[in-house]
Amino acid sequence: MGEKIEILDTTLRDGAQAESISFTVRDKLEICSALDALGVAVVEAGNPGSNPKDREFFSQATGLGLRHAVISAFGSTCRPGLAPADDPQIAELLDAGTSTICLVGKAWRFHVSEILKTTDAENLRMIGDSVAWLVSRGKRVIFDAEHFFNGFASDPAYAMAAVEAAARAGASVVCLCETNGGMFPEDISAATAEVVSRVGSGCVVGIHTHDDSGLAVANTIAAVRAGARHVQGTLAGFGERCGNANLATVIGDLQLKLGYACIPEDNLKLLTSTVRHVAAVSNVPLPGGLPYVGRRAFAHKGGMHMDGVRKVARSFEHVSPESVGNSRRFLISEMSGKSAVTDRITAILPGFAGGEKEVAKVVARLKELEKDGYQFEGADGSFELLVRRTLSPYEPFFDLERFRLVSELSIGERRDRNTTAMIKIASAGREEITAAEGNGPVNALDIALRKALEKFYPRLGEMRLTDFKVHVIAPEATASKVRVLIESTDGRRIWNTVGVSSDIIEASWIALLDSVEVKLLHDRID
Amino acid sequence: MGEKIEILDTTLRDGAQAESISFTVRDKLEICSALDALGVAVVEAGNPGSNPKDREFFSQATGLGLRHAVISAFGSTCRPGLAPADDPQIAELLDAGTSTICLVGKAWRFHVSEILKTTDAENLRMIGDSVAWLVSRGKRVIFDAEHFFNGFASDPAYAMAAVEAAARAGASVVCLCETNGGMFPEDISAATAEVVSRVGSGCVVGIHTHDDSGLAVANTIAAVRAGARHVQGTLAGFGERCGNANLATVIGDLQLKLGYACIPEDNLKLLTSTVRHVAAVSNVPLPGGLPYVGRRAFAHKGGMHMDGVRKVARSFEHVSPESVGNSRRFLISEMSGKSAVTDRITAILPGFAGGEKEVAKVVARLKELEKDGYQFEGADGSFELLVRRTLSPYEPFFDLERFRLVSELSIGERRDRNTTAMIKIASAGREEITAAEGNGPVNALDIALRKALEKFYPRLGEMRLTDFKVHVIAPEATASKVRVLIESTDGRRIWNTVGVSSDIIEASWIALLDSVEVKLLHDRID
Repeated sequence: MGEKIEILDTTLRDGAQAESISFTVRDKLEICSALDALGVAVVEAGNPGSNPKDREFFSQATGLGLRHAVISAFGSTCRPGLAPADDPQIAELLDAGTSTICLVGKAWRFHVSEILKTTDAENLRMIGDSVAWLVSRGKRVIFDAEHFFNGFASDPAYAMAAVEAAARAGASVVCLCETNGGMFPEDISAATAEVVSRVGSGCVVGIHTHDDSGLAVANTIAAVRAGARHVQGTLAGFGERCGNANLATVIGDLQLKLGYACIPEDNLKLLTSTVRHVAAVSNVPLPGGLPYVGRRAFAHKGGMHMDGVRKVARSFEHVSPESVGNSRRFLISEMSGKSAVTDRITAILPGFAGGEKEVAKVVARLKELEKDGYQFEGADGSFELLVRRTLSPYEPFFDLERFRLVSELSIGERRDRNTTAMIKIASAGREEITAAEGNGPVNALDIALRKALEKFYPRLGEMRLTDFKVHVIAPEATASKVRVLIESTDGRRIWNTVGVSSDIIEASWIALLDSVEVKLLHDRID
Repeated sequence: MGEKIEILDTTLRDGAQAESISFTVRDKLEICSALDALGVAVVEAGNPGSNPKDREFFSQATGLGLRHAVISAFGSTCRPGLAPADDPQIAELLDAGTSTICLVGKAWRFHVSEILKTTDAENLRMIGDSVAWLVSRGKRVIFDAEHFFNGFASDPAYAMAAVEAAARAGASVVCLCETNGGMFPEDISAATAEVVSRVGSGCVVGIHTHDDSGLAVANTIAAVRAGARHVQGTLAGFGERCGNANLATVIGDLQLKLGYACIPEDNLKLLTSTVRHVAAVSNVPLPGGLPYVGRRAFAHKGGMHMDGVRKVARSFEHVSPESVGNSRRFLISEMSGKSAVTDRITAILPGFAGGEKEVAKVVARLKELEKDGYQFEGADGSFELLVRRTLSPYEPFFDLERFRLVSELSIGERRDRNTTAMIKIASAGREEITAAEGNGPVNALDIALRKALEKFYPRLGEMRLTDFKVHVIAPEATASKVRVLIESTDGRRIWNTVGVSSDIIEASWIALLDSVEVKLLHDRID
């Protein structure tokens, strides 16, 4: 392994500034543990001076028992005219009780005069005094030089003076921040090299970038190549505006390709699952195309690409999906070559010896349903049923005769909300009618269906729905079509099914029926 | 304006290879027109040899009357052992009837032997003959050198020979493809400069990158800086695996910051709306953090950032949102400084003179609802009602007493599906009970509510719902919570409302009630 890079993840601080992210204290503790398990060196966890929730986090975080990571609190230098010892915000930073503190200060003269409304000299005094005070209290200080690159472009001497003030006062790291996300790798590279040559002997130089020009990762790498050895970002790229540098991508690039050591080598395999876990806790859907860790990062659809990867994986893959804990996927769609569809059919029906005509029948049915709004890429269970229903005389396990769903809401003296589903099915020549209450229509239907069928198939009790997604297709208000995706498990297997309709109840119902059908089918095959 | 860059958009070809994208012919025509209106130079529209839908597209596209763009068909060099004139795939390329053809060939020896299974010399023959044949038929040929950079890294002489074969045969552009997305800007830069020095006098050198290492944009810019003057990508970044270079970002960077001319200067303002339109037609949700054009690209949430931007916009913005047709947003959340909430309150209640205590009341209510799963960042209408309900004795326009919703589905002899909503409301001391049928539960409730209220408020007839989104919060199968967002318009205004519940009907209902309430409120204020 090559040179070490200290990774600081700021999902819990800068990431929390992204739209639609709002962490509870429990969320923060969970993400902190996940980052630690991945092997991140520093978790920047919040600003105790601006946020009561963050204060509560710091008081609970000591119980986490982290193995790799130290936790850092985040705050600003003291205010103009105040000594750090008299600044309540600095006091709260110390109260957080972390060994490490990330302290942000101004490095752009324009910000000093227009935003801070103070003098150049006073800003340098604030930086030096604040760092020195925290160091004297036994803290390791990471100094974030805000807008360093804008400052360096307009007045390099002043930007450098800000960084040197922090270095002289004992900062362990001076981190150069590309706060507005507007710079190019060439700018980053030259300025970083200059800082490294000035203060690099006394402290580590760091880099912190944003993605407003789509260059956060490139800028981070440019800084590392120029001598930076501390990298800030967020594991899933969350952050203000267009987000911070995506650490999953940065770690992949630096460690897998350039030979730097960012996290313990064995932990690279945890990269994909950790990013997905952080996104799930944050309740933010992860773009499928995220480098290395996205659901589509190793998904092949074009016929030529699928054939190529089948012959030699590296023909269309830059790294192996396993190296980062991701996996390869071949997507089935109207664009899939017939050989891909044949492969999928053979996986479902191992004895399949059908010719072109039968494959063409499946492809035709696939296209028909895709035209209606179906997608089978994320619905392996429904795809299996499609194949079986198309190719062989398929005998369903049960038939639905009808259902009736009643939702009532009354307000006033006796507030009441209830949903009842009545359902009638036929299976093995017998009819069954039953009813159930549920929390909302889909839940009520789910319960009623299982209640009716468990008489025939007791093993249905093992099965439960684990995810439910609704996607509005071509929005035309409340009469638009919806696609419902359901994920189910019976503890051994996980499968996905899909339903489409202009009525959300019907779409859910179709996916629900497929889900139960898959369970019954697999139990019979076992 | 500086030097001209020819932009080729391949959303309709490489973009269509992304998971979950499936274009109809009508979608393709619509996207083609949108790209033309933006001022893209070449629209690579499909592969007539592999896809019957693409053949239909080419036959219809001649009627589009494009003003800026030419359409290009895409295909491969002839097959080993065949003359181009005898290759049916090449014949189909010519049949597409476009003035320009994009022809892909191999530049990586490894691919020649392992995937094509032919000799190095035969591959060069295929490239030269195919380009020459198409040129002799009057076509402008863009030669895509697939895997050029992998080829150049392992055998620079052969990669260069492939490119030179195309150039000698009359290709107008030789486009260097970073097909696997695994390279760094330094690699791209050096190899591109070498190609420019070799063939740059006779033809234009182009660049085509993928984002598997998060470097597609940086690699594109590196190539342009090394002399490339033709850039391929997709406007919204769609494409195989992690996607192609995002052209919206590339155009923003090259044209706004580096002074190149990619599209007509006046059209930069169309960038945001065009990307969103392409995404909507593609039915792919656009990541909010997309540089320049994302919904969050100029959204400020952190208190310090909001205060800074309020003082001087460029303090936290790399370019002005208006320059690309986007807009600035201040997000309201528990992290918002009180001054931001006060601003929003004053915008709603211009006479607001309330003190800290009243602002704190609003913030407290906001936090309470956010804890329940609400988000007001995308629900200005519900936020306005929250403010009014919290700060003043708010008299609602109507009260719901109860509703009852019946959904029925029967299968068999008489297949039937219907949904009926019965609703009872009180307004101005009078009660009204009514019922309506609809296409699904939300549609039925919407119709019934309006029917009941139009007796009291005839102007409700002007209003309609234009979007409906369902977001599952913390998925726990069918009993998990859902957040419903509704967008409404009355032709003059657009507003958004939100509802949260474990029951999708109730969540929709809450958002629906708010939506109608906002309409009635604004009509009274007008």
